[in-house]
Amino acid sequence: MTKLSTNDKNNPVFNPKNFIQSERASSKIQIDQINTFLESNPERRSLTHRLIQEITNDRTLETDTSYYDLTKTQQREITAKKISRLSLYMEHDIKTSRNNFDKNLIQNLQKNNNTEPILTTQDFAIFDKRLSLIANIDPQLSTRVGVHLGLFGNCIKGNGTNEQITYWLQERGASMIRGIYGCFAMTELGHGSNVAQLQTTATFNDTNNTFIINTPNLTATKWWIGGAAHSATHIVCYARLIVQGKDYGVKTFVVQLRDLKTFQLCPGIVIGDIGTKMGRDGIDNGWIQFNNVVIPKENMLCRFVQVENNGNGSVKVNIQPQLDQISGYSALLSGRVNMVMDSFRFGSKFATIATRYAVGRQQFAPANDQLGKQEVQLMDYPLHQYRIIPQIALVYLIAPISFKLMDTYYDTLNELYRVSTAKDEKALLTVSAKLKNLFISSASLKATNTWFVAQLIDELRQTCGGHGYSQYNGFGKGYNDWVVQCTWEGDNTVLSLSSAKSILKKFGDAAQKGKFNEKLDGDQFGYLDPNFIAEVYTNQVTANIEDDSDLTNFIQVWSIILVKSLIHIGKALKKNNNDIDSLSKLLVQISKFRAIYLMLKTYHEKLSNENESHITDATTKETMWNIFRLFSVYYIDKYSGEFLQMKLFKADDISNVIQPKLFKLMAILRTDCVALVDAFELPDNMLNAPIGFFDGDIYHNYFNEVTKNNPQETDGAGIPPYYNALTSMLSRD
Amino acid sequence: MTKLSTNDKNNPVFNPKNFIQSERASSKIQIDQINTFLESNPERRSLTHRLIQEITNDRTLETDTSYYDLTKTQQREITAKKISRLSLYMEHDIKTSRNNFDKNLIQNLQKNNNTEPILTTQDFAIFDKRLSLIANIDPQLSTRVGVHLGLFGNCIKGNGTNEQITYWLQERGASMIRGIYGCFAMTELGHGSNVAQLQTTATFNDTNNTFIINTPNLTATKWWIGGAAHSATHIVCYARLIVQGKDYGVKTFVVQLRDLKTFQLCPGIVIGDIGTKMGRDGIDNGWIQFNNVVIPKENMLCRFVQVENNGNGSVKVNIQPQLDQISGYSALLSGRVNMVMDSFRFGSKFATIATRYAVGRQQFAPANDQLGKQEVQLMDYPLHQYRIIPQIALVYLIAPISFKLMDTYYDTLNELYRVSTAKDEKALLTVSAKLKNLFISSASLKATNTWFVAQLIDELRQTCGGHGYSQYNGFGKGYNDWVVQCTWEGDNTVLSLSSAKSILKKFGDAAQKGKFNEKLDGDQFGYLDPNFIAEVYTNQVTANIEDDSDLTNFIQVWSIILVKSLIHIGKALKKNNNDIDSLSKLLVQISKFRAIYLMLKTYHEKLSNENESHITDATTKETMWNIFRLFSVYYIDKYSGEFLQMKLFKADDISNVIQPKLFKLMAILRTDCVALVDAFELPDNMLNAPIGFFDGDIYHNYFNEVTKNNPQETDGAGIPPYYNALTSMLSRD
Repeated sequence: MTKLSTNDKNNPVFNPKNFIQSERASSKIQIDQINTFLESNPERRSLTHRLIQEITNDRTLETDTSYYDLTKTQQREITAKKISRLSLYMEHDIKTSRNNFDKNLIQNLQKNNNTEPILTTQDFAIFDKRLSLIANIDPQLSTRVGVHLGLFGNCIKGNGTNEQITYWLQERGASMIRGIYGCFAMTELGHGSNVAQLQTTATFNDTNNTFIINTPNLTATKWWIGGAAHSATHIVCYARLIVQGKDYGVKTFVVQLRDLKTFQLCPGIVIGDIGTKMGRDGIDNGWIQFNNVVIPKENMLCRFVQVENNGNGSVKVNIQPQLDQISGYSALLSGRVNMVMDSFRFGSKFATIATRYAVGRQQFAPANDQLGKQEVQLMDYPLHQYRIIPQIALVYLIAPISFKLMDTYYDTLNELYRVSTAKDEKALLTVSAKLKNLFISSASLKATNTWFVAQLIDELRQTCGGHGYSQYNGFGKGYNDWVVQCTWEGDNTVLSLSSAKSILKKFGDAAQKGKFNEKLDGDQFGYLDPNFIAEVYTNQVTANIEDDSDLTNFIQVWSIILVKSLIHIGKALKKNNNDIDSLSKLLVQISKFRAIYLMLKTYHEKLSNENESHITDATTKETMWNIFRLFSVYYIDKYSGEFLQMKLFKADDISNVIQPKLFKLMAILRTDCVALVDAFELPDNMLNAPIGFFDGDIYHNYFNEVTKNNPQETDGAGIPPYYNALTSMLSRD
Repeated sequence: MTKLSTNDKNNPVFNPKNFIQSERASSKIQIDQINTFLESNPERRSLTHRLIQEITNDRTLETDTSYYDLTKTQQREITAKKISRLSLYMEHDIKTSRNNFDKNLIQNLQKNNNTEPILTTQDFAIFDKRLSLIANIDPQLSTRVGVHLGLFGNCIKGNGTNEQITYWLQERGASMIRGIYGCFAMTELGHGSNVAQLQTTATFNDTNNTFIINTPNLTATKWWIGGAAHSATHIVCYARLIVQGKDYGVKTFVVQLRDLKTFQLCPGIVIGDIGTKMGRDGIDNGWIQFNNVVIPKENMLCRFVQVENNGNGSVKVNIQPQLDQISGYSALLSGRVNMVMDSFRFGSKFATIATRYAVGRQQFAPANDQLGKQEVQLMDYPLHQYRIIPQIALVYLIAPISFKLMDTYYDTLNELYRVSTAKDEKALLTVSAKLKNLFISSASLKATNTWFVAQLIDELRQTCGGHGYSQYNGFGKGYNDWVVQCTWEGDNTVLSLSSAKSILKKFGDAAQKGKFNEKLDGDQFGYLDPNFIAEVYTNQVTANIEDDSDLTNFIQVWSIILVKSLIHIGKALKKNNNDIDSLSKLLVQISKFRAIYLMLKTYHEKLSNENESHITDATTKETMWNIFRLFSVYYIDKYSGEFLQMKLFKADDISNVIQPKLFKLMAILRTDCVALVDAFELPDNMLNAPIGFFDGDIYHNYFNEVTKNNPQETDGAGIPPYYNALTSMLSRD
């Protein structure tokens, strides 16, 4: 193996380091300030960096390019070891959060007569962040832990009584990944999106106060259950509650799958491995069938539904309809909120790789230099800028909304637990409305951004040409791991439609009945103020795309886009006899426009306020505003077909205003593009892609990783394992 | 393992077979006739079916779902065995083509004093088709053989003298995959698209009539060379011809890599394995460095370039500039032409899977049935139709152009060999112009269709929800294997730009100088007739999108789109000081519009002529025309932003004409969608995706394949290999 190099100065050898390092040096923007902006605030930023440092320097948790060569079996084995390692970090993180390094803290928390305060969201703040960062280097690992804590744990938190929460999560140890390991049995072979029609049954036996869990037919087989194939000891099972022959709909039940010591399957439990997937093979997704599995009555999670057996065949079922369903699905909220954060992190990774490669890679001589000695940097081609720079802007715009959504999620859930424990009916109504808004926003933000980032990975891979197709540069596994985010925990299309329909409903209430709750909806649905709708409707306000100096104007433009789109749909509905299904192509767009609006608005609010943005340097701030402008202009151009049809703009507005702006902004941002991705501050071992390493020594780095993972035979022979198949063919008679 | 089923008729068990089989039965269209249309003609159709039968029933060549579980090492080993098997089919196919089953035919062909006629394109017709069909079930296998025959072989055919062609391909046996196994060493670590700047050198030594091949620096390392890591004995090496210090540019040289018996690397050859890739891991892509490798003068392929050593230090280099470069790259033409055919085949596979799944899968009760007993078939949702049916239409439209392009390719190449052997200078000029047109058309058709099919696979995977993410349903590996087609053998962006620039040049000649060669350009560039351009320019013809009855009108509309787009670019160039790079976003679109135009035109010509279409049934023909209409309307809607900007249409045309047409056509075609994909006539073992099998028994088929590949432990235990990691974690102190 040889790193050939030359001393001949006249030989046109590439030196990508020169470009990357000199462009880095010449940029005037302050990447420290930007990183603080992107990481929300200085405290969070510092925690992020500490955790990344710990993750990428832990021999068990780190990943390098050898990761891309693992078989499914190896991935699963290594993932299990990593989970075990993470359980220790979790204890450590809880102790850090409490500032209590008493060696018995964890044991005390698990005690039945625990004297410590019970575990709160705050106690998990550090570990949740750790897990979210791990998702950026090893997504399957964070999913494995996420299914246990986020889905199993949150399902119990969302649907269990305080006693059940304390019992399962604390005494039994689930929250500390001790004692039991849980998974989340919602999806069936025949039902994914339509949870209300799941077919597994939980039939109450009033003679002995048990439930009998059954899989009535093949399509009722629980399917895709992460952790079920080999790891989980318990599940929360979504099953139809059947009491005295009556079907009360889908509720949640804790069911043990395996003996805790021997890992033997419990009686009546049949489990198999789902096998290989497009990505994330480190997760042992399984299928489960139940044959008369008996569980005690206490195993039904009964915060919002109770079965009261009064003896003598008198059984009463109480359901709190207002919250039953919404909280039933609240376990999924955590995943959706996290996927917006993942979109930021995953996007930042691939934007960094592609940008550094595009700055370092040269191809073709410029038109005015026929000597061909100095080939053009890819990033100097306007088309290449168009393929990369808006993707950088996208990642920047996802950052503030992802933190805001996460904060809203925790605030709302904490409020829900508090008021439902206090049984405050009026406060429950409010929190229920907030929860619904959170469903709408998280659905459209999850769907839109996981789609955008899937495109980002795919498009940026292509900008790296053949080297993007090498597994060692991360795009292949990155894409395969990523795209499941578009279909799981709420299929993107279904989420977009449901989010858009809710917005349409709110719009109808506002436009037709003048209904608008400023306190509840002012922040996220400000454009639905009836006065504003009337102004748009009567063209008293119109989208002004000329004015770049008034930055609130950009929000105004997207508010108008949203209202005009809603009016457009409203009219179409009237023409269409209210056949909403026929308008679903437009509804998916509404969900996207809404996400773009929220992203712009949140970024704008943060950057407008120096206390929030932490950006004091004027040049840096102007660059950040250019990112904001570019993002808006890029998506207006992208959806210009839709907007022109709605007569939001004139055709010449797009050709003569929007497109020239777009290319002008890209040319401006191109100067700082290395610094703009440096500002994500991702270390090389988080990027795990040699063509994107910090030093910019693209070709040596890439060559080194390839040869490290594929060492040449020491005798230089290279006789292949399939030598005989070849030689016997070539020498055949 | 258990296939649970129920006898309870009131239990809402899904029965997807019912839908698929009854929709199949009720369709009135003639799939036999359609299949003949798609497969070009009855003779080709019958050959296709015979070959598919042979491939899918050969124990060595067949693939089943276990294919998706293979490791890289296993893939490579199995691929080598398959190549060996294919070499026997190749001999068989040559004998069939010649109708000569003399057992010594192959040996005779290899003889130096061969008395048989030399091998021609016709001799390979059957085997080439076999290979193209294999690409649809095992793309890496066809690539492995394609690199040897298509790239190595065609490079020698395109650049070698008749003697060199006979020597390497016939006497040495390369054409029969005997004696030598070749690969194609063009790309380097530092240069992909810019072939003219490759850095490997071939320096002529006039004292002993040899070339010395060298890798001057790291980025000159040959990279991605398929077959180099372990298999190839020889390469064609693209290297700079240096004679007496002068650089004559990149030429081609045959270089031996390995000893034919021992497979030891030859002196000066350094080779390594590129390792794991996003897909196609069965291909042993390698890197190669040359350290003073000496080859005889005869190993330079010298049809269009000759080095004449007159002794005494007098060396003359002759180059036929007219054909040197274009034929130098002609090896790539075969790949591009094949990729259009691959687009048809790959597209047909995934369209079949997704359509059957969408017809069999139900989810959510209809709005008017709150009982939820009968859930809606996915294919009945208009949005789902929008996601699937235009993709079926796309595949239909690719079929005729892919056969036409293949025929044009063979005709043009045969003409080239003939006239360049005859040294007919005038005829060479004509064939050179034809070759250039072939480059333009194949570039835009390859780029556009490989992109469209990449989107098709991705979008159709998403329509299958979670089950699309299972590797056993083919989408994951299908996508990973596919997308390299977007960046290799001409990066799609680079090809699109180069194709569009050539079209723009022709347009300039036509519009400004009235130049138009009807004979040469009439078929593929008819819209560039100066009279037509003038009519469009002066709005004497305008795009009429109302009229659906006159089917030539659809071609007219796209002719106008093309001319208007070219005028639009011409104007922009003037404004822009001829800075063509700044318009490259538009140029990529031009290449797409041109491909769409050619596809519509070719389909139209074929379907208009009953002798060509073989479709006599009126209902079937009307359905085929609806496919044609849908395709046009779908892409007008898709690019409506661009078209509205060019003022090709009014905004209301899109909302009130195009979109209603689109949804109406989809609703009509929905009725026959099962039959439309049945008409691809792909057997289950070519689909290799249980949710798409013919009988429509989606859930049982899928469950069976999953459990077959992931058998449960016989003791039902399921103790995982990583048991200790889990139990020690769960029971830790």
